[in-house]
Amino acid sequence: MIPIVNQMLSFSLSEPIPPLLATANEAEYGPIILTAVLLSLVVIYITSKLGGELSKRLDLPPVLGELVGGVIVGVSALHLLMFPENGASAADSVIMTVVQAIGNLSPEAVTSIFNSQSEVISVLAELGVIILLFEIGLESDLRELGKVGYQATIVACVGVVVPFAAGTGGLMLLFNVPAIPAIFAGAALTATSIGITSKVLSELGTLKSREGQIIVGAAVIDDVLGIIVLAVVASLAKTGEVDVLNVIYLIISASVFLIGSILLGKFFNKSFVTIADKLQTRGNLVIPAITFAFFMAFLANAIHLEAILGAFAAGLVLDETDKRNQLDQQVVPIADILVPIFFVTVGARADLSVLNPAIPSNREGLIIATFLLVVAIFGKVVTGWSIFGQAPINRLAIGVGMIPRGEVGLVFAGIGSASGVLSKPLEAAIIIMVILTTFLAPPFLRLAFNEPAEPVESADSAS
Amino acid sequence: MIPIVNQMLSFSLSEPIPPLLATANEAEYGPIILTAVLLSLVVIYITSKLGGELSKRLDLPPVLGELVGGVIVGVSALHLLMFPENGASAADSVIMTVVQAIGNLSPEAVTSIFNSQSEVISVLAELGVIILLFEIGLESDLRELGKVGYQATIVACVGVVVPFAAGTGGLMLLFNVPAIPAIFAGAALTATSIGITSKVLSELGTLKSREGQIIVGAAVIDDVLGIIVLAVVASLAKTGEVDVLNVIYLIISASVFLIGSILLGKFFNKSFVTIADKLQTRGNLVIPAITFAFFMAFLANAIHLEAILGAFAAGLVLDETDKRNQLDQQVVPIADILVPIFFVTVGARADLSVLNPAIPSNREGLIIATFLLVVAIFGKVVTGWSIFGQAPINRLAIGVGMIPRGEVGLVFAGIGSASGVLSKPLEAAIIIMVILTTFLAPPFLRLAFNEPAEPVESADSAS
Repeated sequence: MIPIVNQMLSFSLSEPIPPLLATANEAEYGPIILTAVLLSLVVIYITSKLGGELSKRLDLPPVLGELVGGVIVGVSALHLLMFPENGASAADSVIMTVVQAIGNLSPEAVTSIFNSQSEVISVLAELGVIILLFEIGLESDLRELGKVGYQATIVACVGVVVPFAAGTGGLMLLFNVPAIPAIFAGAALTATSIGITSKVLSELGTLKSREGQIIVGAAVIDDVLGIIVLAVVASLAKTGEVDVLNVIYLIISASVFLIGSILLGKFFNKSFVTIADKLQTRGNLVIPAITFAFFMAFLANAIHLEAILGAFAAGLVLDETDKRNQLDQQVVPIADILVPIFFVTVGARADLSVLNPAIPSNREGLIIATFLLVVAIFGKVVTGWSIFGQAPINRLAIGVGMIPRGEVGLVFAGIGSASGVLSKPLEAAIIIMVILTTFLAPPFLRLAFNEPAEPVESADSAS
Repeated sequence: MIPIVNQMLSFSLSEPIPPLLATANEAEYGPIILTAVLLSLVVIYITSKLGGELSKRLDLPPVLGELVGGVIVGVSALHLLMFPENGASAADSVIMTVVQAIGNLSPEAVTSIFNSQSEVISVLAELGVIILLFEIGLESDLRELGKVGYQATIVACVGVVVPFAAGTGGLMLLFNVPAIPAIFAGAALTATSIGITSKVLSELGTLKSREGQIIVGAAVIDDVLGIIVLAVVASLAKTGEVDVLNVIYLIISASVFLIGSILLGKFFNKSFVTIADKLQTRGNLVIPAITFAFFMAFLANAIHLEAILGAFAAGLVLDETDKRNQLDQQVVPIADILVPIFFVTVGARADLSVLNPAIPSNREGLIIATFLLVVAIFGKVVTGWSIFGQAPINRLAIGVGMIPRGEVGLVFAGIGSASGVLSKPLEAAIIIMVILTTFLAPPFLRLAFNEPAEPVESADSAS
């Protein structure tokens, strides 16, 4: 059906291919690419639902289950969902083997289809993370920030600077990791997942406590800081060198882009509502919103920042409109079908077998993973002691509340992995760090608030 | 970000590429593919909304505007959205020229990115038509069919057989078109768009009249017959030859697949509702539904039928569940962002300049287009006279109500175009036929029901 494979094999496009000759190739390859994409999506969705539901039953965040599900179907274990950049060939992928059997294909054809299919799934995963950040932007209420203000800002800044400095410095000095991957791994330590912490806090009934308010405020600021850090780090990864002037340029351009979008957004907001009200056809709200998000993502990409920075800015802008709730509701099903593709493929791409403790040569990778985990935990726990001159406050609870990395940590891991700067052990170490911090935070948080470690509510009633 | 381009350029995947070497290439190409896809999607969405809204203001179906919008931004006019299979190179595409300027790319890099981007957009368009047919399936109420039954079935069958026989026969005998493209064009004449007719009927207040009920019933049966015809014809196009045994096998397998899915679906229905009720995480309804639709599409593809047949069957099955209304609502935003990609790209791919009357060599194409249009209109108008032994009935109104081809006609044109069997003039003639039948049906229908040709309601109140 898609006549692209054709052109992939012969790059000379100056002469149109005669229709009947083209047909033979297209009939052979085109529908098969669609078959491979459909089968991959079915595997991804089933994995995400099985993992997410199991995770939820264990009182853990669903996103953790989607990630672990991805690890299980991916290169680390079942080899269902494989990507060529792992050095895998089509024959290593169970999905491609099934597709080959269905289509009765030659090895060359399968290799070409494997590449096309992986490319399509990769772009879908990137559209997924763009929609995810758009949704996070839509849910980040900037007006709320004013209320917690000062303390939350200090906690957020300390929680970004300490893990970043300790992580990057430690990797470079103790483990001789080159600067760029060390900076990337350090940056991955900075994120805080607001979703996981606020869910546990609300279960404990401490969301509205002073500690709870500071944690949530700091996590929102962390999102913003984290995305600026990611934009800077990912650009460094592209150029491959750390140039102080370039770093300054990137920090300024990312900040200007974000702040500028929010300021200009106040004017755009009104036009957006006017446009959505005037449109009379289906999708009158969701299409302009997604178009705006994609356009901002394109713009960020075009000025050499990350696409997700643009999507996040678009979400922040549209969050301020009256249409927010209606839009939220319509974006949910779109996010539901695109975001799992991102989480599952991040898991599937990560080769955790490089950390198998049974193999002696993996020792260094394991030590790095342990080091990252320790920095990830203590780098956030110290944030509680950054609040001075306050009435007695549960400093440990604030610090522990900042531990889980969740979605945003995975965005770092995913983009780092796709950019190719991370060595396999380092990539695996980051994924393990994200999994374990997310896994450990809920029980730790209950302990810090002097609650029993068992879930207060049963899994059923917590839904 | 996506390290595929790498592998596209060097097909030898046996050796993993060293990370730092890979980075250089990926940093150059990967994010640029995403940039190109995002820009294409922004252009597609703006085109679809401008076209759809303008069409709606002119009291025409929005889908017509999306198609015409696609024609305007595509190969026929503005050259914004181009596809390599038209023989276009990256330099012909305005979007790729912009992307090249942004990324400062070499011509080889642009060609490779152009191919990747087109491939991704093509798969997105195919996912769009899969979701479209899933939605049509969800909206086709099989129980309603029992009520109109006999007359509607006759009207539907005559409305499939007459245009198909006259179209295919005429093209082969009068214009010496080879069998496969003639059959494809004939098949494209069989579809009826229920959406357009039922909207006009409801504006005229005649939806519940006997004529209205027969038209709507026949249009639903037409959908089912049309999709079976498409599955058969598209398979013929793949093998490239008309073998009577193969045709019989295809008709039987497509019918068995559809009827079998509906019968087995009665059991699956209950499991589906049980699963959706048990799931506690986000997307508990929409993910199982889309997974089912994609799985059925995969299955249909795997047994060499069309993916859309599977998606349509999945829609018919899930239509029978209690969750139907809730599901309908959640599928709408997903369809809103995927379906316009299909309609706009069908328009963009169709080169209508081959029918420019100013150029003498286009004479034959124009005559074919006129012939198809005449068959399309009269082949459906005669259906009114297929009802025997009835009380006085407005036969002309029934016939005219079956004229618009709309979405389903475009599905034929899109799949025919992508399969490469249609010559450019024939493809353009089919698109023109779909546009004109859809354009002419509303005023004709008003005349046939003896209504004034002007819209009874203003465009604003008809929303």
